[in-house]
Formats: sequence, structure tokens, C-alpha cells
Amino acid sequence: MKIYIDAMGGDNAPAEIVKGAVEAAREYSVPIVLVGQEKAVRDALDRYDTQGLPIEILHAESVIGFDEEPVKAVRHKKDSSIVVGLQAVKENPEDVFISAGSTGALLVGAQFILGRIRGIKRPGLGVSIPQGEHSLFAIDVGATSDAKAEYLLQYGQLGAVYCEAVMGIPNPSVGLLNIGSEEEKGSMVVKDAHQMLKASGLNFYGNIEAKDIPTARADVLVCDGFTGNIVLKLTEGLMSFIMSELKKSMMSSFKGKIGGLMIKDDLKEFKKQFDAEEYGGSPFLGVKGGVIKIHGSSKSGAVRCAVRQAILFSENDVVGKITARLEKMRDSGEE
Amino acid sequence: MKIYIDAMGGDNAPAEIVKGAVEAAREYSVPIVLVGQEKAVRDALDRYDTQGLPIEILHAESVIGFDEEPVKAVRHKKDSSIVVGLQAVKENPEDVFISAGSTGALLVGAQFILGRIRGIKRPGLGVSIPQGEHSLFAIDVGATSDAKAEYLLQYGQLGAVYCEAVMGIPNPSVGLLNIGSEEEKGSMVVKDAHQMLKASGLNFYGNIEAKDIPTARADVLVCDGFTGNIVLKLTEGLMSFIMSELKKSMMSSFKGKIGGLMIKDDLKEFKKQFDAEEYGGSPFLGVKGGVIKIHGSSKSGAVRCAVRQAILFSENDVVGKITARLEKMRDSGEE
Repeated sequence: MKIYIDAMGGDNAPAEIVKGAVEAAREYSVPIVLVGQEKAVRDALDRYDTQGLPIEILHAESVIGFDEEPVKAVRHKKDSSIVVGLQAVKENPEDVFISAGSTGALLVGAQFILGRIRGIKRPGLGVSIPQGEHSLFAIDVGATSDAKAEYLLQYGQLGAVYCEAVMGIPNPSVGLLNIGSEEEKGSMVVKDAHQMLKASGLNFYGNIEAKDIPTARADVLVCDGFTGNIVLKLTEGLMSFIMSELKKSMMSSFKGKIGGLMIKDDLKEFKKQFDAEEYGGSPFLGVKGGVIKIHGSSKSGAVRCAVRQAILFSENDVVGKITARLEKMRDSGEE
Repeated sequence: MKIYIDAMGGDNAPAEIVKGAVEAAREYSVPIVLVGQEKAVRDALDRYDTQGLPIEILHAESVIGFDEEPVKAVRHKKDSSIVVGLQAVKENPEDVFISAGSTGALLVGAQFILGRIRGIKRPGLGVSIPQGEHSLFAIDVGATSDAKAEYLLQYGQLGAVYCEAVMGIPNPSVGLLNIGSEEEKGSMVVKDAHQMLKASGLNFYGNIEAKDIPTARADVLVCDGFTGNIVLKLTEGLMSFIMSELKKSMMSSFKGKIGGLMIKDDLKEFKKQFDAEEYGGSPFLGVKGGVIKIHGSSKSGAVRCAVRQAILFSENDVVGKITARLEKMRDSGEE
């Protein structure tokens, strides 16, 4: 197994990406391949003592920018770090590719280059929403904007395999994001998906309302990519907004300033508990290979966590397990 | 003008509803009609000195519960506080009805009893999302789960009329909730709505991403009812979750406890700034009358704020202005 990392993707590339790769190679002794412009990556690597570390460089001449149209970029930039990295992963099903670059290009590239697992209608992008001591694995958070009920059913299956294999949760419970707890609530797509999930043999938790996302004790949260993306981004935006407004409120009074200093450690601890990074990045499930998207603003810690996640993804053979589940369903005529 | 208030709706009815009505009658000297079981309302009223206050009671024998199927409940419970209240409002277009009861029954009832304004395809439920000193008026937040692009366009028009008339914002800017800032992003419905809003003559702000909801300086946020409801409920859930987790973090250390005491006032001030209640309830726009939904857990303060909002709604003739705008569009062949 090798972990390929897009050294050029994201706001802090290559410096922070390379730093995280070095830390991960030290901590997990896993072979890491940095994909990117050789000279830039070499310069970044030279700042560390990498003697004896299993780190290689795979040259890729260009980079796909955040503002490029994904399909066009993947087609034309064959020498970009995303395309070169995905091509490398394609050779060996045990390998995993991690990127902080363009989400669109990564998802399009993964589908073009690796292909979908047989039976998968739409691959789904998942992400762990931290809830303190627990977390909720939401899928899809943005791969497909116009969902059908059958995609939602598959997201439930993909999420369940992932939670079981990577997070070690036996028989994970699968909830459905909806605007009410009753089964007749919601859009037509979500109503149909409710019935399909109920009949699927999955450990169906029922509907989950948005107000309960921070506390619901389900393992998987099935949602369409449009709503899932809104949930993810709103959580991110509100969290940082509340923290900054809170700081402003405290800084406006003398007593608040002193109090703020006293709760600084608790605030840090609190923020750490809800740091999505700790759970790694967003796995793209349903394609024939391991693909993990990390945030564009990722620093070395996020890279390190994603490498740990990639190791679990590969060692627990998530792709093989998804393939096997779909085959079993075909055999039993469920599909 | 009279303000009709459902005295039986919500978790704290009739006590808190009646309390809020008394406070509002004192503060705004506006005629208030409490709709509900006469004896229960009278008992609650008797706890206050209402001498000289313009408060009446309109008897309604039954109450529609939160768990009742809305269409059935509205059809069969003709003597419920919601149906009786809406019937009363129907008589006089200047009147407004406020309820903390079943949202479903209120919206269904308003459409059945008051009817839609000519040209309105789907009325929309709006709500102000507080952003500190500013607020964002989101519409629709749950009236219609399966939106079409033309409904979203109308939500933009309804929101703009409301912001201008009730909140006094000249030429309000209208944003569209989407999963990216580029116009080619999003679901098919949202992509079409983007083009329609752009060509509508409204002051179109462009797409608003969920992470920017707490800070975006647009006045109206157009969204489909499913996503809008998710945004509303997630904001509510996260806000209260973060506050309670923060408290827990602080209470776990001695220093944190002391610090917590010192920032207590700032926390209160902070919470007040983001208290949705201050902006009143959720107006249901597009029906032939004033209908305002307040939260099921509303206390007297929320009732008082909703009465202030109802007065502005009536005095600024929101229904008349919506009607006029639709007529103008018909005349110019835009519809």
C-alpha cells in the first residue's frame, strides 16, 4: 500500500502538505508519494530530515486551480497533480490518493479515471460531522446536486460500509436528513428514500431533523448532495462566526477580557472536540479506489489525520467491501 | 386593524400567550383579540389588570394538536382556534392572525380560508435570521418541500416587498442560497432560478453560500422550503448546542467556572443579539391576509415582538403591495 498525496493542492501547498506528509511518514511508517512539481516539492522536503523515511516524489508538471471548470481541466491537464495522482492509484487498488485541491476536479477525475464500482449509480462524498465524543458520517455532501431516491439508498449503504470498516462501528445505524420526524414528511425524493431505506435491511434510524444533527446518535446521515453541502458549510460558517462574535462580545468589557483569558484553555479544548480534521478528510465512496478530499485550507495536521484515515481505508478494504455488498444485493435480486 | 392571537397554540399556551398579549396591548395600544376556549383564556387574563386595555376574547372550542394531520385537522375542526382565527381575519384585510400552534395546520388553513393572492403559485414562509446588527430574511423555510424555479423567483419578490414595507429597507438586495458562488453551480431548479432572478428587475445579489449566511449583507435569502427549513433548524440546533457545550467545557475546570461567571453578562448580550424573537415571527407571504407563525416554544416576549411585526405588516399594507406588484408584472407581460 502507498498513500499518494497531491502536494500542490490547497491554499497552503506545497509547504503544509509536505510537512504533514513528513509527520505522517514518521508516525505511521507508511510509504508516501508526493505528487507535484518535482523542484517545488523537493525544496519543501529539504526543510526536514527525511533520511530513512519512505517518501518519494512523483512529478506532475501542472496544477488544476480552484476556478477551473472541472471536466475541462481533467480532460486537458493530463500532467496535473490530480490526474497524475489518480492515474497512479488506478494501478494498485490498495493505494489511496489524498488531495486538498479542487473538489470538482478531484470528483470528476476519480469517476473518469478510476471509474464507478459496478452497480453504483452515483458515488457519494462523505464527511464526519463531529458531535463531541461521537460523530455523524454525512453522505452525500456535494458530489451530486440533483438526487434521486435510489441514490440516497446507495449513500446509506456506502456510509454503513465505511462506518463499519474504517470506524469500527458494528451494524451502523443510518438516518435520513429530513424536515420532520414523521415518515410522510419531506420532498418526494426524500419520502421515497425513506421507504427504500426502511426496506433495505440496513439498521435504519429513521428521519433526522436538522436541529438534531449536533446530538443525534445515529452513525450515518443520508442526504442529497445539495442539502448535505449546505449543512456542512453552514456548520462551518456558524461555528467560526459564533466563536468570533463571542470573542468580540468578551473583548468589549474589562470583566469579559479577564474572563476570556480564564476560559481560553476550555475554549481551545472545546474547539478541538469539534475539529472535523481529527476525523480525516472526505472519502469519495463508490469509485474503484481510495480517494480522500481534504479542506482547501488544510494544514499539516489535517494531512496527517487524512493519512491515518487512508491507511484504515486501505487496510480494511473499503472498496472490496462495497463491491461485495453490491454483488450480494444483485445475487439476491434486491437490485 | 385588529390583531388576532391564537391563545391555545404552542407549548406555553394559554398562560404565556395571554401574558404577551397583555404586554403588547399596553405597549402598542392596539386592539387584540384572543382566540381560544373562553374559560381558559379568561382565567389566564384574570391574572392581569386589563382594565381599559383593548383586549377581547373570541371563543374557539377546540385546538389542533402538533401531531394532527394538517389538511384533515383544518377540514374537520371548524371550531379550532386556528380555523376560527383565520375566518375572523378573512372578514377584514387589515387584520393579522398570530399563532404558535401547528405550522402545518396554520399554512394549510391560511391557503384554504384566506386564499392565495392572484398570480401567486405558492405562498412562502419567511423568517429573519439574525446576524448581529443586520438580519437576513429567508424565504421559503418550509411551506413547500418540492420547489420549482418559478416559486423561487416569487419568493424573491415576496421577500423584497416584505423587507421594503415592514423593515423599511429601500430596494432590498435578494440573494439565492446555493452551493457555490458561480452561476452555473447547484441543482437544476436553483440554476434556473438564478437566471430568472437575474432577469427579474429585482436587486439581485447573486448566490449566497451556506457558510456566508451568518455574515452575507444581502436582505433576502431565497431558498426552497426543504433547504430553508434545514438551514433554520440547523442554525437553531447548533446555536443551542454550542452554548450548552461551551458551558459544559467551562464548568469542568475551576478556572473555567470563575471565567464563566465573569463573561456571563457578555454571553447574555451575545445571545440577545442573535435572538430570532426580536425580529418577530415567520410571516406567511402570498395569502390574502396577514398570518404570522411564532415558535411553538414562544413565551410572552415572542408574542409581543410578533404583535409589533403584525402592526407594521398591516400599517404598511404588505398584502396590497404584493397584489400591486403582481398586477404590474401581469400588465407588463412579465408573468
